[in-house]
Amino acid sequence: MDNVKHVVIIGAGFGGLQAVKKLSKNKNLRISLIDRTNHHLFQPLLYQVATAVLSPADIAIPSRSLTENMKNVTVFMDEVTGIDKVNKQIILGNRKMSYDYLIISAGSRTGYFGHNDWKKYSTGLKHLTDALEIRKRLLMSFEQAENNPEKSSGLMKYVIIGGGPTGVELAGSIAELSRFIIRKDFRNIDTSKAEIILIEGGPDLLPSFNRELSVYTKRKLEERGVNVMLNTRVQNIEEKKIFVKTSEGEKSIDANIIIWAAGVESVYIENSPEIKSDRQNRIEVNSYCSLDEYPEVFAIGDIANFRDENGKPLPGVSPVAMQQGRYAARTITDELKGRPRKPFRYFFKGSMATIGRKDAVAEFKFFRLTGFLAWLSWLFIHLIYQVGFKNKISILITWIWSYLTFGAGARVIQEPIRRRKT
Amino acid sequence: MDNVKHVVIIGAGFGGLQAVKKLSKNKNLRISLIDRTNHHLFQPLLYQVATAVLSPADIAIPSRSLTENMKNVTVFMDEVTGIDKVNKQIILGNRKMSYDYLIISAGSRTGYFGHNDWKKYSTGLKHLTDALEIRKRLLMSFEQAENNPEKSSGLMKYVIIGGGPTGVELAGSIAELSRFIIRKDFRNIDTSKAEIILIEGGPDLLPSFNRELSVYTKRKLEERGVNVMLNTRVQNIEEKKIFVKTSEGEKSIDANIIIWAAGVESVYIENSPEIKSDRQNRIEVNSYCSLDEYPEVFAIGDIANFRDENGKPLPGVSPVAMQQGRYAARTITDELKGRPRKPFRYFFKGSMATIGRKDAVAEFKFFRLTGFLAWLSWLFIHLIYQVGFKNKISILITWIWSYLTFGAGARVIQEPIRRRKT
Repeated sequence: MDNVKHVVIIGAGFGGLQAVKKLSKNKNLRISLIDRTNHHLFQPLLYQVATAVLSPADIAIPSRSLTENMKNVTVFMDEVTGIDKVNKQIILGNRKMSYDYLIISAGSRTGYFGHNDWKKYSTGLKHLTDALEIRKRLLMSFEQAENNPEKSSGLMKYVIIGGGPTGVELAGSIAELSRFIIRKDFRNIDTSKAEIILIEGGPDLLPSFNRELSVYTKRKLEERGVNVMLNTRVQNIEEKKIFVKTSEGEKSIDANIIIWAAGVESVYIENSPEIKSDRQNRIEVNSYCSLDEYPEVFAIGDIANFRDENGKPLPGVSPVAMQQGRYAARTITDELKGRPRKPFRYFFKGSMATIGRKDAVAEFKFFRLTGFLAWLSWLFIHLIYQVGFKNKISILITWIWSYLTFGAGARVIQEPIRRRKT
Repeated sequence: MDNVKHVVIIGAGFGGLQAVKKLSKNKNLRISLIDRTNHHLFQPLLYQVATAVLSPADIAIPSRSLTENMKNVTVFMDEVTGIDKVNKQIILGNRKMSYDYLIISAGSRTGYFGHNDWKKYSTGLKHLTDALEIRKRLLMSFEQAENNPEKSSGLMKYVIIGGGPTGVELAGSIAELSRFIIRKDFRNIDTSKAEIILIEGGPDLLPSFNRELSVYTKRKLEERGVNVMLNTRVQNIEEKKIFVKTSEGEKSIDANIIIWAAGVESVYIENSPEIKSDRQNRIEVNSYCSLDEYPEVFAIGDIANFRDENGKPLPGVSPVAMQQGRYAARTITDELKGRPRKPFRYFFKGSMATIGRKDAVAEFKFFRLTGFLAWLSWLFIHLIYQVGFKNKISILITWIWSYLTFGAGARVIQEPIRRRKT
């Protein structure tokens, strides 16, 4: 009985879930998975909820059903309000929970790098609620334009800040929505006139990709009607207005919807272990994904700052989190058998981003793809990694249907207009 | 040019949509469809969104995509704030729109028959937002019980007021959720102990059905663990408390979630034609579904009070609305050709309600069904009448999957818990 060790995992993201799966096979362990939501969110497809292609339930799978057959796993929908490393306890409001091992995989959230006042005027894309908010605003902007055609050019103007995969995929997806999917549905406006501006501070889109792919992506987005602005730094954001600095000087851009996809930061936990003040406030970990002083505490995925052999932090992407999750689980199991720790090593498998219908870029270890083949790989890989059989089928059917009909499967504005008093 | 008449339709429900479809074929007409939401809502399945089986997009189909190929139809997402019958204009905030013909099919909303203070403590089930609210509260109640097992009996206590089809289907569905679907997913509580109480003021469930079916439904719901209270009148509702009067006297019932499915009333439109103060505030119409003084104004579906040959109002169900929608469209087209109006006649096709997995009751003109066969008919008819191909497929797959796996396809709580300050 006393041999049963308790592993607490904070966060049911890619990293946390892999750790749970692997640890659950060890019957000498009792595992508690804590998450603020009731689901694992397949974040790579979040932009498709924002652009009305998928429904929340397609990419949000209940953590409970994912673990229902793992009898040594208990799921708690709760929020960790503090960590007491000395007494090996986490704090959940007025409850405490002791642990033998702790895996912190709470992930990241939209980060404004000190400009928290910008949050009021722009929407990030990290949570389901963000995606639903963007979806509502996008769809409403077209509805308002149809009711007020004289104001349509202002209403159909969208700025996305940040030229990483999220920004690129959102821009391509909004272009597709306005150019193809909904164009036939309006009588008073031409939705293909919608202005989509993608702002990137650096000289390239998808800065972490090979430059050839960045150039390709820019050209293809432009062909689809996206206005790509490189070397453009955001100075300030106000209501429906962005102030930027380019090589040509400073200027302001009006926009009906401003989406912030320019950065993330660690999810903040009070008294959390050694949050270092790197730009993203990540937890500095050693080569075992753990803390030097508290080796029973692991931090993995977006919340951790793991430096590779060159001292470069690993990127905040799902393959890193998944590999670290499996690594932490293996390390705990090995250690309980008396085996020494081996350092974590990341294997780069590839990265990809969609541009739109039949077009994407993909970078693997030994080769690169663009266009239709990259797009097919993207579809295939995102379906394979999607958790849950029902979701795979549901997404697959929605994609096939969208592809054939140029339709968007989730064009629902949940709330009605309420203008009159009742 | 001047021959083109303008028909305005308020509401994209079952009645409005049938009218639009039929009228759109008449190229001498210009049609404007106005709705406060951006979709047609398939209300008969709303309870399945509330109990986490279906997603909003499964039963909410954009009015724009439904009418995209009807070139003489314009859709406006807006709210009618008044009707000026004398000048043949409807008012939309600070806009006005003239009509030659007006079809009012704005439907009904949850009605408390004068007890509007009860609204604060109970949730109705007429809109998507209602269904999402019930879904969130239901799922959260189990999460809270898992975190506080000592309080679980209070947290897992649900009262549904109203023994019509909505109440019956909700009660059966919540029983299924707690008894089967989620039971394996919790470690600290037994969700099958959840208490589900269905309160009906009259002597029978499903009062509009044949009594044999009512008795069957009660027995089957009880076998599934629902506590059915007949002849029980609600006297008052307070926070998490209901005061009722039965033949045995008065008493109070505690409940974590109170769902009000006991009544509806007309959607209120200012200066709307002759709203009569029947219990549901419906518009009194003549045998042509129109107003005596303003024959160009039709009212159909839930918002209309149409009396059959015996002077009995037709029920607020979708077949009535659909038949009246087609009737109004036909009458307008005929009248423009100089033909006289013929009175509307309702053809009863049947009514049905599900009790749960493999069980339902169905009443047709010449025969009745219960059990598995009724359930299959229910599935089949609800799929057939569902608008939109994509939705049919999506719902069909979800149902097959749910049937085989005892799973619920949309167990998503959209909002995370936020306990700590950020």
